[in-house]
Amino acid sequence: MSDTHSSSNYELPNIGGNPSSNAEGTNPGSFALSPTIQAGPEGARTFASPDTSGMPAPSEKTAWDFMPEGWIKKDGFETDYHRAEAWQAPEGFQPITQLESARMGITTPQMERVAEREPHLTPEQVRDEVAAGRMVIPANTVHLSHQLDPMCIGRASLTKVNANMGASPVSSGTDEEVEKLHWSIKWGADTVMDLSTGGDLDECRQAIIKNSTVPIGTVPIYSMIIGRKLSDLTHEIILESIEHQAKQGVDYFTIHAGVLRAHLDYVKKRLIGIVSRGGSLLAKWMIDHGEENPMYVLWEQICQVMRQYDVTFSIGDGLRPGGLADATDQAQLAELCTLGELTERAWRQGVQVMVEGPGHVPFDQVEYNMKLQRTICHGAPFYVLGPLITDIFPGYDHITSCIGATSAAYHGASMLCYVTPKEHLGLPKKDDVKQGCIAYKIAAHAADIALGIPGTRDRDDELTKARAALNWEKHFELSFDPDTARAYHDEDLDVDTDFCAMCGHDWCSVRISREIVEFASGKDENYAWEKAKKTAALTPEQQAILKQRGVLSPNEIHKLASKTVKTMPADDKGKANCHSDYVDADSAKDLQDDLVEIEGK
Amino acid sequence: MSDTHSSSNYELPNIGGNPSSNAEGTNPGSFALSPTIQAGPEGARTFASPDTSGMPAPSEKTAWDFMPEGWIKKDGFETDYHRAEAWQAPEGFQPITQLESARMGITTPQMERVAEREPHLTPEQVRDEVAAGRMVIPANTVHLSHQLDPMCIGRASLTKVNANMGASPVSSGTDEEVEKLHWSIKWGADTVMDLSTGGDLDECRQAIIKNSTVPIGTVPIYSMIIGRKLSDLTHEIILESIEHQAKQGVDYFTIHAGVLRAHLDYVKKRLIGIVSRGGSLLAKWMIDHGEENPMYVLWEQICQVMRQYDVTFSIGDGLRPGGLADATDQAQLAELCTLGELTERAWRQGVQVMVEGPGHVPFDQVEYNMKLQRTICHGAPFYVLGPLITDIFPGYDHITSCIGATSAAYHGASMLCYVTPKEHLGLPKKDDVKQGCIAYKIAAHAADIALGIPGTRDRDDELTKARAALNWEKHFELSFDPDTARAYHDEDLDVDTDFCAMCGHDWCSVRISREIVEFASGKDENYAWEKAKKTAALTPEQQAILKQRGVLSPNEIHKLASKTVKTMPADDKGKANCHSDYVDADSAKDLQDDLVEIEGK
Repeated sequence: MSDTHSSSNYELPNIGGNPSSNAEGTNPGSFALSPTIQAGPEGARTFASPDTSGMPAPSEKTAWDFMPEGWIKKDGFETDYHRAEAWQAPEGFQPITQLESARMGITTPQMERVAEREPHLTPEQVRDEVAAGRMVIPANTVHLSHQLDPMCIGRASLTKVNANMGASPVSSGTDEEVEKLHWSIKWGADTVMDLSTGGDLDECRQAIIKNSTVPIGTVPIYSMIIGRKLSDLTHEIILESIEHQAKQGVDYFTIHAGVLRAHLDYVKKRLIGIVSRGGSLLAKWMIDHGEENPMYVLWEQICQVMRQYDVTFSIGDGLRPGGLADATDQAQLAELCTLGELTERAWRQGVQVMVEGPGHVPFDQVEYNMKLQRTICHGAPFYVLGPLITDIFPGYDHITSCIGATSAAYHGASMLCYVTPKEHLGLPKKDDVKQGCIAYKIAAHAADIALGIPGTRDRDDELTKARAALNWEKHFELSFDPDTARAYHDEDLDVDTDFCAMCGHDWCSVRISREIVEFASGKDENYAWEKAKKTAALTPEQQAILKQRGVLSPNEIHKLASKTVKTMPADDKGKANCHSDYVDADSAKDLQDDLVEIEGK
Repeated sequence: MSDTHSSSNYELPNIGGNPSSNAEGTNPGSFALSPTIQAGPEGARTFASPDTSGMPAPSEKTAWDFMPEGWIKKDGFETDYHRAEAWQAPEGFQPITQLESARMGITTPQMERVAEREPHLTPEQVRDEVAAGRMVIPANTVHLSHQLDPMCIGRASLTKVNANMGASPVSSGTDEEVEKLHWSIKWGADTVMDLSTGGDLDECRQAIIKNSTVPIGTVPIYSMIIGRKLSDLTHEIILESIEHQAKQGVDYFTIHAGVLRAHLDYVKKRLIGIVSRGGSLLAKWMIDHGEENPMYVLWEQICQVMRQYDVTFSIGDGLRPGGLADATDQAQLAELCTLGELTERAWRQGVQVMVEGPGHVPFDQVEYNMKLQRTICHGAPFYVLGPLITDIFPGYDHITSCIGATSAAYHGASMLCYVTPKEHLGLPKKDDVKQGCIAYKIAAHAADIALGIPGTRDRDDELTKARAALNWEKHFELSFDPDTARAYHDEDLDVDTDFCAMCGHDWCSVRISREIVEFASGKDENYAWEKAKKTAALTPEQQAILKQRGVLSPNEIHKLASKTVKTMPADDKGKANCHSDYVDADSAKDLQDDLVEIEGK
């Protein structure tokens, strides 16, 4: 019966958003990957826009709408003013910041370098994005004289990841922090924030800047109250401290200028008040002094100090929610409006701007948050902590938050501040830093693929080909963390066969699929799997990786592996005595049956 | 300067989708949480719909549109036929399946139990959802006679998590699998699939069913080719095997009936062919025999066997993509259309249906996939593997996939099949099972919050309150994995103080926020933190958790903790000698400074 039911001539319903390029099969899976040039609403933007089809719509206004005093719009550019040609800088003006150079149409060496590192962008596109305020290059001129390798954060570029570190009063010191710096860079951190609140802050910061190839961010208020009561903090001390750190070479400052006295009333409605350290300190200062937030009041003066060294703003969200219950609430949104105002004011001072975003947001509210920020802050790059999308998994908040981070990046965030498994519990150790970095590289990379940034899926496709060819060496080589992948594989079966221990020989769908010769899959010549290979015994590093999992004893962990080594020994040419391309299927099955018998199952 | 800039009277731009209930602050963060009754398009549905405002639009058709032969629509119900009252069952008809009972308006004990377990639903709503085919209760009548505690999977219910296990030819045995069963239930698995392909399959399956309080699923084709060549598989063997497993008490069967001969051409375009075991076996069988997929041909006969025991279908997606490059391609979509046809045919036989979904999907394509499935399969619950949203992180695929799973559940998937860190690498061990379960509980819970299922955020809010009160005991008690959370906390500081090692005393924003007495936060009386408590020394379990992280030696791990114990000893009343509610701020600061001095920093 029922062959008549055949629906092989399928027809898809039209449900809207139908990725027809895919359904046609001409280019499976790639419909989000073709970069297209968006005209922008009402043709307002005429500069080269490297937007891809997967990106959310850009903001209506950009930094071109908030030019410094003294810059003159040339005649004939009344509506077409979104480019350097439209503007006359003040007489004798010398650009210092990347934003100022970009506004003058100058392509700096840092912009060249950024384009080299992100080959989907030209130096001119980088310059134009910086001029529009939609991209920053956090590169303190002092840090550039050390080892800084310029990078960018913004709409058109790859999504970046920041790792936080820093000694606290009860833990860690300078050497350990420098070690963590190198460790985070190894695991993919694009920038690092030194959030030290203990030890010798000045020495630690200096050491980190000198040793770092990536931009370093700080929260200057932390050092302002070391050896001083918060209530003794004055406007003068604030400006001095900021100048001191700018001179040291810090690339970006988190300054919580958006928390205003008027917002504090909204905080009373919250379950968990203020969870930003900078925000809570400034709230306390305002209450103690009965004055407005000094960072807000001093904003233009702070800008002028930062401009001298091209320090980039990361305008802090001191009222970010500390739990789902407080997400997208009045306090957060009122502050966000102030962050928009501060963005405009900083741009008018020629300073580069990022804006920080919320830490706890239910999954359905992430897109709204990103869109609102983009609108209010006119496309300034959004730098988001997480966000966590549930509160009940302490110990796993690198996971709860990297889910929110993926959605945030897909909906417009440009940099993701990692969260480690120790969030809410204690100071991250080295392995926590690694776990945090990896979770966030996953988020950033997955979002870049979804956004359709050209080239981002290439490595995934290469790995898929290696997987199809059951070429384990290449599979691990293309993995983000080859040691761990190899260790997990070798735990059960430390020979490279054309199957793995997950399914075994008879049940390996990839192997079966390869046997169906009419399928091209797994036949890419460059990935051809030549022979079963005996891998070396587990290295100490791999053993350590397995031990971390801790549930089985090392003996138990290696039991199965040694079983397979015993029954499937490699011969002197390195060929394992198990099924492979040159052992016929029946012999392989026999061998497996023997194995099962030996193991008494 | 600049007080004049004040934007404290903020006004939000209207960007669409504006959650105004939030911006008003009357009910911060809860705008997605109020259940509302949706009328449905054109008033087509008149049965009680427990949809929440966060849910995607329901499918146009439901199981009411695919009634079995012999059921007669009563006069006057031509358009209003979405309820039991509209139908006359055939003379003498005896319902066996939950679907059949629901169609007759019968509320079964299993429906009652489901409503008890999900208090946001009434038994009648459960019945109506089952009748509409939008919910299944996988409860084999034989398994019900053992320990099965009925649960449901569907649109209106909480998102469920499935854990896969099973012996493979190179690893594991029955005892180990039963142990893994209990272990996965402990970590939140709502159903378990026994995917054994090695050892004594029959004995293992029997043991798992007898021991399980949760529904058990299998892929019957696996047992059909044990001790038999795939090419020797006949229609008779297929029906016999299915009947045998149904009789044993399996609650749901994955049957890959959607892979048709006509689809195999599309597979040639793929990077990695067929990655479903069942799919690849059936493809090979079809090529060897030159015949159509026997599962497809035998569909009605299979339905009749399953109906006798109320086994639920989980219609397998044998052509699910095995890499991002193959996602949403012709092969997958052509098969999906067949899955829709099979759904209709199963409903006409009175059998409950779930449909399985793709394993690798770029983040931006997840929503489209969910919507397409819902449309084509008329709202049958979607049971999704992952999906992985990047391919280059083997060893971390529980994370890459739980991101996709969160989005899938938010956009309409009803059950998430977990992926462990060992995916693509080997057979999961106990700790892998735990990591997989937890990652997927995060996904399911976060999606339920986002969907606005009533009550789902309560525990998060309780934990936020405990966190605001710095009440560590309650904080850990409310955590999903209290031991791990406690162990991470105690690693640095095994006294419970009103701060943690992450920031230390001076820098704890929550503590500072609490000092601002005008904020209500952290003042919930039930959560008041009474006193600093010295916690017991780390338990062996906690020590094991810390050892798993493997980077620091146990000595190093406990160094800081013992330091704090030394300098902040608890007195005989259990009060730690550190800052707390009854130590004034200056003394606490002195104590901390002493500590820093002692540690030589």
